[in-house]
Amino acid sequence: MARLNENFLKLQAGYLFPEIGRRVSAFAAANPEAKIIRMGIGDVTEPLPPAVISAMHSAIDELARRETFRGYGPEQGYDFLRNAIAQHDYRDRGVDVAADEVFVSDGSKCDCGSLLDILGNDNRIAITDPVYPVYVDTNVMAGNAGAVVAGGRFGGLVYLESNAANGFSPPLPDQPVDVIYLCSPNNPTGTVLDRAALTRWVEYATANRSLILFDAAYEAFISDDSLPRSIYEIPGARKVAIEMRSFSKTAGFTGVRCAFTVVPKELEATTREGEARPLQPLWHRRHTTKFNGVSYPVQRGAAAIYTPEGREQVKGLIQFYMANARRLREGLAAAGMTAYGGVHAPYVWVKTPGGATSWEFFDTLLKQCNVVCTPGSGFGAAGEGYVRLSAFNSHENTAEAVARIERFARGGEAPH
Amino acid sequence: MARLNENFLKLQAGYLFPEIGRRVSAFAAANPEAKIIRMGIGDVTEPLPPAVISAMHSAIDELARRETFRGYGPEQGYDFLRNAIAQHDYRDRGVDVAADEVFVSDGSKCDCGSLLDILGNDNRIAITDPVYPVYVDTNVMAGNAGAVVAGGRFGGLVYLESNAANGFSPPLPDQPVDVIYLCSPNNPTGTVLDRAALTRWVEYATANRSLILFDAAYEAFISDDSLPRSIYEIPGARKVAIEMRSFSKTAGFTGVRCAFTVVPKELEATTREGEARPLQPLWHRRHTTKFNGVSYPVQRGAAAIYTPEGREQVKGLIQFYMANARRLREGLAAAGMTAYGGVHAPYVWVKTPGGATSWEFFDTLLKQCNVVCTPGSGFGAAGEGYVRLSAFNSHENTAEAVARIERFARGGEAPH
Repeated sequence: MARLNENFLKLQAGYLFPEIGRRVSAFAAANPEAKIIRMGIGDVTEPLPPAVISAMHSAIDELARRETFRGYGPEQGYDFLRNAIAQHDYRDRGVDVAADEVFVSDGSKCDCGSLLDILGNDNRIAITDPVYPVYVDTNVMAGNAGAVVAGGRFGGLVYLESNAANGFSPPLPDQPVDVIYLCSPNNPTGTVLDRAALTRWVEYATANRSLILFDAAYEAFISDDSLPRSIYEIPGARKVAIEMRSFSKTAGFTGVRCAFTVVPKELEATTREGEARPLQPLWHRRHTTKFNGVSYPVQRGAAAIYTPEGREQVKGLIQFYMANARRLREGLAAAGMTAYGGVHAPYVWVKTPGGATSWEFFDTLLKQCNVVCTPGSGFGAAGEGYVRLSAFNSHENTAEAVARIERFARGGEAPH
Repeated sequence: MARLNENFLKLQAGYLFPEIGRRVSAFAAANPEAKIIRMGIGDVTEPLPPAVISAMHSAIDELARRETFRGYGPEQGYDFLRNAIAQHDYRDRGVDVAADEVFVSDGSKCDCGSLLDILGNDNRIAITDPVYPVYVDTNVMAGNAGAVVAGGRFGGLVYLESNAANGFSPPLPDQPVDVIYLCSPNNPTGTVLDRAALTRWVEYATANRSLILFDAAYEAFISDDSLPRSIYEIPGARKVAIEMRSFSKTAGFTGVRCAFTVVPKELEATTREGEARPLQPLWHRRHTTKFNGVSYPVQRGAAAIYTPEGREQVKGLIQFYMANARRLREGLAAAGMTAYGGVHAPYVWVKTPGGATSWEFFDTLLKQCNVVCTPGSGFGAAGEGYVRLSAFNSHENTAEAVARIERFARGGEAPH
């Protein structure tokens, strides 16, 4: 009799985005003339850079001719891409990462879940709150969490709250933990960990032999060179951290699918007997056994990001979205609201006015301004009392959303 | 202290293809004039069908313009592809599969490993022998196997031998098993399970409430309409089987990456308490939480396979490779050798002459004919005494390889 994985039955229904969709649909049906501006989901809106388009077309033409056709590629990624990543993202910035420590994949979301394959099922997991829900759900699936306790939290996980009081820099755990998820620049708060904060984490992990899973998917949005873009800028990090990065937000790859994960050769974890073993060969084995590499034209597209034209075009994309983030921040301030993030990340984290809950303010913004946000409580208990606004939109929509919010804050009319 | 998954330490080193590579390199270095023909790895050689090329170019052009740009797609695959699969691969053949039971992925290898996520860790697993090594290795990683026992086999797994005596149709297990891997047309033997054999398996699974993981990656190579192309052609299979299919071999997608898995809504597995629950929602949740969908241009390319031109072009590709398989079979027979498969699959499974081991005959073919095969023992203990030859090659190379083998069998000179 085949048995199922009962950990899946602990998962709560994917509530957040379906519920947003339900409320927006109901409002749109009742107000067909309303021009709704969607600033909820974190998906890019601008087309792929021309260098990427051109590289992908060329790669497809290669696959059209017997002489240049390519079948199976290396599961870990082609050398042309692994070398470009190691060189431009790391060594050019003085960070020591070798090409064979870079594993190309079809997404950080996938890597985030797959990394649990190489870890034992007796690790104590620390997760910041609010947080990208995939960290929590994949640990529940893997059996690393207990039953649901108060506020939708899971027993067995250690939650580290980041909030305005601690400057959205989560505190070190007050109990030993084995695995720590950190995301900087942060989704959803849009804030970034500075060198001192990251150093504290690397020191903690070194002292406790913990593993840091560092999600740097929004690294490209950092505009201040004194802030760390990689955890490997911190001395000692190669012994305690895995870093995930993605081309999704950097270069508009959310639908094209390419990302990578760095597993340094010095990084070790232990057996139950306490024997230390390197994790890089385990991840290599996992990658080659359970994955077959990223689509060849996609890898060519990703490599084009590292050409001089590609780099300029990506810079332009980032500046485009960050102009929206600036406008959002300034507009919310002008409207008398308190907002965080949005300086080194494409998200602005807005304190709900007047003590409203996240969902109450979601409804207000939808009804009064016809603007869709994401309720902060959807990212965890510590997100209650906030909403997330995304800078992934056109300049026109962003300006119009800001104007509506300012008008609403001044007690003006709703836009319809 | 972070713990690693110790099941990975049970895995044997990936021996087969590195060892083939080592022997071929050594031979080539010692015999630089030898024209080596590689018939080992099962990778396609012909370019992508023009309909696929054209659809992928168009999709990339869509991503180049803001008006037609697409970001995140549905994790389970776009409706245009799920509908085409359900219609053309199933309903047009009278098989009941709905679009929302089709989950598009980046490869059957990935699905094969990922499916274990939704199953409990107390299932007894049956695996045919010889077999695609990924079935075994992913179960070892997931903790479903014990330590290595004799002949490289793992304790805890139930091995079902397919051999010439049983017509390469593996016997039903002589002990209860919960999960059964079947692959038809088979890799590596190139043989196919007929309706009677598949019916026996569905009846067994129904009686024992077992789950069949049916790998139909080579379905397109079946040339006899009386043979089942899908396990769902067998009554009752929707309650006991998951089917995996791939565009890799069908349409030359080994480097482009697209496949799909069907999980019928009636299929159930049980909790430890014995309560039956449907697996389709668990797989849906797994797919949406740990995967982000297949690259948009790739999905457009896959959908083009179902257009009238695409179907004709794919038929041409299959006929191209199957002409090689026929030539291989006929040539080996003319050389006095015994070979199986190669009628409904692109692989020919050759009995080594004179009682040689798989590796001995590998060396003979390499040295005497400069032809690279895959030693059958690499696919499991029951593969000893066989080698696999692949039909994925040019007509010229295939004809030349056959000529050399015939010449060698007649006691002629080595080709160099």
